[in-house]
Amino acid sequence: RLDALLDPLHAADIADLLEQIGPNQRRDLLALWKGGVDGDILSELDESLREEVIEGLSPGELALAVQDLETDDVVDLVEDLDAEGQAEVLAALPAADRIAVEKALAYPEDSAGRLMQSEVVRAPSHWTVGDAIDFLRSGITLPDQFYHVVLVDPRLKPVGYVTLGRILSSRRDVRLRDITEDSFRTFHVEDDQGDVARAFERYHLISAPVVDDDDRLVGVVTIDDAMTVLDEEHEEDILRLAGVGEGALSDPVLATARQRIPWLIVNLGTAGLSALVISRFAGTIQALVALAVLMPIVASMGGNAGTQSLTVAVRALATRDLTRSNAWRVIRREALVGLLNGVALAAFLGLATMLLFGSVDLGAVIAVALVVNLLVASLAGTFIPLVLERLGVDPALASGTFVTTMTDVTGFFVFLGLATVVLL
Amino acid sequence: RLDALLDPLHAADIADLLEQIGPNQRRDLLALWKGGVDGDILSELDESLREEVIEGLSPGELALAVQDLETDDVVDLVEDLDAEGQAEVLAALPAADRIAVEKALAYPEDSAGRLMQSEVVRAPSHWTVGDAIDFLRSGITLPDQFYHVVLVDPRLKPVGYVTLGRILSSRRDVRLRDITEDSFRTFHVEDDQGDVARAFERYHLISAPVVDDDDRLVGVVTIDDAMTVLDEEHEEDILRLAGVGEGALSDPVLATARQRIPWLIVNLGTAGLSALVISRFAGTIQALVALAVLMPIVASMGGNAGTQSLTVAVRALATRDLTRSNAWRVIRREALVGLLNGVALAAFLGLATMLLFGSVDLGAVIAVALVVNLLVASLAGTFIPLVLERLGVDPALASGTFVTTMTDVTGFFVFLGLATVVLL
Ligand SMILES: [Mg+2]
Ligand SMILES: [Mg+2]
Ligand SMILES: [Mg+2]
Ligand SMILES: [Mg+2]
Ligand SMILES: [Mg+2]
Ligand SMILES: [Mg+2]
Ligand SMILES: [Mg+2]
Ligand SMILES: [Mg+2]
Ligand SMILES: [Mg+2]
Ligand SMILES: [Mg+2]
Ligand SMILES: [Mg+2]
Ligand SMILES: [Mg+2]
Ligand SMILES: [Mg+2]
Repeated sequence: RLDALLDPLHAADIADLLEQIGPNQRRDLLALWKGGVDGDILSELDESLREEVIEGLSPGELALAVQDLETDDVVDLVEDLDAEGQAEVLAALPAADRIAVEKALAYPEDSAGRLMQSEVVRAPSHWTVGDAIDFLRSGITLPDQFYHVVLVDPRLKPVGYVTLGRILSSRRDVRLRDITEDSFRTFHVEDDQGDVARAFERYHLISAPVVDDDDRLVGVVTIDDAMTVLDEEHEEDILRLAGVGEGALSDPVLATARQRIPWLIVNLGTAGLSALVISRFAGTIQALVALAVLMPIVASMGGNAGTQSLTVAVRALATRDLTRSNAWRVIRREALVGLLNGVALAAFLGLATMLLFGSVDLGAVIAVALVVNLLVASLAGTFIPLVLERLGVDPALASGTFVTTMTDVTGFFVFLGLATVVLL
Repeated sequence: RLDALLDPLHAADIADLLEQIGPNQRRDLLALWKGGVDGDILSELDESLREEVIEGLSPGELALAVQDLETDDVVDLVEDLDAEGQAEVLAALPAADRIAVEKALAYPEDSAGRLMQSEVVRAPSHWTVGDAIDFLRSGITLPDQFYHVVLVDPRLKPVGYVTLGRILSSRRDVRLRDITEDSFRTFHVEDDQGDVARAFERYHLISAPVVDDDDRLVGVVTIDDAMTVLDEEHEEDILRLAGVGEGALSDPVLATARQRIPWLIVNLGTAGLSALVISRFAGTIQALVALAVLMPIVASMGGNAGTQSLTVAVRALATRDLTRSNAWRVIRREALVGLLNGVALAAFLGLATMLLFGSVDLGAVIAVALVVNLLVASLAGTFIPLVLERLGVDPALASGTFVTTMTDVTGFFVFLGLATVVLL
């Protein structure tokens, strides 16, 4: 009955089902149905659950599950397992695949060498369409999915590729090297996965050969995997901007709490800094309690404007739309935007304050403080991620805290400082 | 000389170059080189620049530029032009393409019907591999890129598809219907682009047929376009979470300022709400100015924790990892995480406050306020996007403001309220 229900589902849907049910239901379901867990399902499962599921399989079941996978999926599966689990999976593989997987694991994490599959269809560059068709028909083992034939020179250096559509629509005597695609580009095994994925999106690639240090063809990255990497990069950016570490909805409570607390601790420290600034002006506040009422407005507006600039900058850095060559133009633009919006909002807030608190001076002070803070916010929001990027730190990771600390401290300091000078 | 420099570049790189230089340089460059602007470059350009560049082309140049594009790229190009520009481009197209583009434009914005190209390679489902090869070799016009042959029944309903790799590696007498792929799934012309893109990522699709209301094959979506849509969806989410509207780095200052100010105005309103709450406790603050020093800490910690929960929820909704079936489990989990971290941080902050301000009561008050606010933050951060999603509003759009308003107001109210009761 369970089989009838689960068999027609795609591996990704079964994986999601396993992720969404509770740990107890999951244990029961797997006990009843673990024979059904195949390599595709393992591939689709969140890393946090894989170990648990793999441990539940017997070596025989595991061997059966992984042997049909392409090497890139095996690599993705084993790279996060402990040594024992890795050895178990590797032992279950056919010899050729095992060697390919071991080689891939020797490349750095998040490299093209890990992302590529070793199953490639290649052909000598002097072949004709007829040669290629005869070769493909000869009964050799082909990858599950492939879209190009990669042309290589005698030293296995890729020199171009031909789409299958072009092969199918050309006469048998046409030379492959005469029908190669303009979009051809190769990646190096140590290229960063994120850069590879971005290039796929940018140049509309479907697959791309990967070469080693000797420029020899060692594998191919396919767009479905590049798309998943791009999705993961986005996930990382959006979560890091919010100060959330890696994790999954199926993680246990304690693990999630532990993964969230670091940036809360940092925020406690920076909030303490703001408190320190405010405490320097305790006397002023005592004399004019309206300042305590109004000061969070200045800080909060700065935080908001800073987050806007920051997010635009982080996103533009990720898509490579923000580069060294236009950095100054963008900084200038953001400063002007901050100034413009600062003046517009300050005019309104200043007027409202004058009317509600009956003090022209107080209105003027909050207006000036707001303009200054919005200018600082947009400058910091653009400048900080640029600096972090140049220092080799992920700009999504730490910018948020820097920027809001900056706007909080500036907001409280300028507002309360001006008030002390002007109003007392 | 300009030609020698620009010709070897990919259209995407030339488009980026045009986007990154200033408006004056851009005008000069285009004046010198506008003959070189082809359809691919127009496709890659940001919408904000397309109109400007298209206006600079003569009708003849425009006709030359667009006639080699697939219909999906033409649709993407014209959908944001004004009526005059649209008419100009449409007039430049071959008749068959023009009809396909006009049909596509009749489908809703951001639908599969707009995303698909009308150029499809299809075959009757009774054909053999040999029939397909002969057909592909017959010299008919084929799409630039295609990866599957779609099998259709006599009423043009797609019934399966065959990869070109499978066709190439099978004998001529094999029936196409016997070598179709399991991954086959079709989309309806009115399906949402974001859903289509998500399905491509989820099910590792490379291309997928699109059908109309009569279940007839009308086009095909390819993964390169799905990948771009996924990228745009992410951009939308991340910018909306930060309260930034659609826009590009190349937009003019005034347009950018206008596009950022709406959420700043909303934030001014909600900050006013916080100020109102604080003003109710002016007497308490007057009596104990330490409260003014400490109150931003409680609010800021709540905002931070709320943003964490919110971002996780918005992202999980976008990837469909958070659904009705696990909503309660996730809310419970977030509440526990908020409570745990709240207690841990409150213990520290409470103790620090006691020591620094020499008041056990003040330490207790801030500790309790922090726990309450972190609990509210994680509940609101999860609950609000879920409610917005169910109401059909993009949860990325408005959640941030709701959540931080909630945590600011709660933070100030609970802290100052407790202080009034306990300390005065
Ligand atoms: Mg999943
Ligand atoms: Mg294999
Ligand atoms: Mg992989
Ligand atoms: Mg991995
Ligand atoms: Mg593109
Ligand atoms: Mg793969
Ligand atoms: Mg990143
Ligand atoms: Mg661009
Ligand atoms: Mg065409
Ligand atoms: Mg469009
Ligand atoms: Mg997947
Ligand atoms: Mg296309
Ligand atoms: Mg969205």
